[in-house]
Amino acid sequence: MTLCDIGNSSVDILEDEKLSKVTISDFDFANQSKTVYYISVNSALSEKLSTLNNWINLEQYIDRTCYYESMGIDRIVALQSINDGVIVDAGSAITVDIVDYGNFEGGFISAGLKAMRETYVNISPNLDYSFNFELALDKMPKNSPDALTYGFLGLLVKEIARYEKPIILTGGDALVLQPLFKNALVDELLIFKGMKQIITKAKLC
Amino acid sequence: MTLCDIGNSSVDILEDEKLSKVTISDFDFANQSKTVYYISVNSALSEKLSTLNNWINLEQYIDRTCYYESMGIDRIVALQSINDGVIVDAGSAITVDIVDYGNFEGGFISAGLKAMRETYVNISPNLDYSFNFELALDKMPKNSPDALTYGFLGLLVKEIARYEKPIILTGGDALVLQPLFKNALVDELLIFKGMKQIITKAKLC
Repeated sequence: MTLCDIGNSSVDILEDEKLSKVTISDFDFANQSKTVYYISVNSALSEKLSTLNNWINLEQYIDRTCYYESMGIDRIVALQSINDGVIVDAGSAITVDIVDYGNFEGGFISAGLKAMRETYVNISPNLDYSFNFELALDKMPKNSPDALTYGFLGLLVKEIARYEKPIILTGGDALVLQPLFKNALVDELLIFKGMKQIITKAKLC
Repeated sequence: MTLCDIGNSSVDILEDEKLSKVTISDFDFANQSKTVYYISVNSALSEKLSTLNNWINLEQYIDRTCYYESMGIDRIVALQSINDGVIVDAGSAITVDIVDYGNFEGGFISAGLKAMRETYVNISPNLDYSFNFELALDKMPKNSPDALTYGFLGLLVKEIARYEKPIILTGGDALVLQPLFKNALVDELLIFKGMKQIITKAKLC
């Protein structure tokens, strides 16, 4: 089975349980002969794929009424895979979504690591520091790398800790962020688990 | 008396108690004949001003030992003006600093409103929403503008509220942010109050 999670800048592919990533420009979607199940937040690419018979957009099999209209399909699909917890999907954006025993409680969106690093540097060359992923959150920062990390990741981690729910980290930066989250589980295949659940539920194969 | 707070992109000027702002490129520093007291986070401009006798850099009169080495002089000067509270300086960056009865407790740096708006749009055209400055912070967002606002300003406001200290908002976006902070005081002249304290203490005039 081939599954694709199409983002704005790259595509995550799970083929025969092997995970790979390609940039959008290198993504050779027209030469796929097998059936591919996909989700996409990239509307330009979705439009092209809709003309190809072997590309099945899983979005059509999802009941969106539990979620809000403009919510990214990737967030919705990841939520299918858990019953209770917080999903932190750290990619070009960091999305945080809460499920309370089957009910979607809401969520929020922060910028991704790469985007925030660039944002700080663009504000001022004085803010050109790498983030400190070992930051102690129980005291206020007294140096520049910690001050930047706290103002972005510190606030995020402290907010999520207050939910007192299991935390699942996914997305390209999940492992990088893990040291900041106590007892968080990293699951890079979370979105594909959600996709498989949708396929099973819709009896597609 | 003329006071200048020189930032990365603009200069705030207090002349005879009248506040004005000019962009760095429009800042005609060479044609000032009067004595000007200034602070600057703009090292290129500081270097030029150091050759002019009538431009007095107040940084030399500050005891930096209470603060950390790379901390912006604007943050340090603003802190001179209060004894107890949280200063939120919302400009191109948002700096948050805590003073506990005269002691600097530490602080952190978030991106400014304009920078974060651009960051979200650059991540994806799907994140092109204005912030909601009336956001309710007691529930999780279920729409895109609130999800973006919460992931940036919501986390910031909730963190600052937990300090249970007087909040003073300053900087160009202080009034825009005020609806999100309960009982916060807006003081656009805070940094100039700090500068005046330094001038008085150093007996410069």
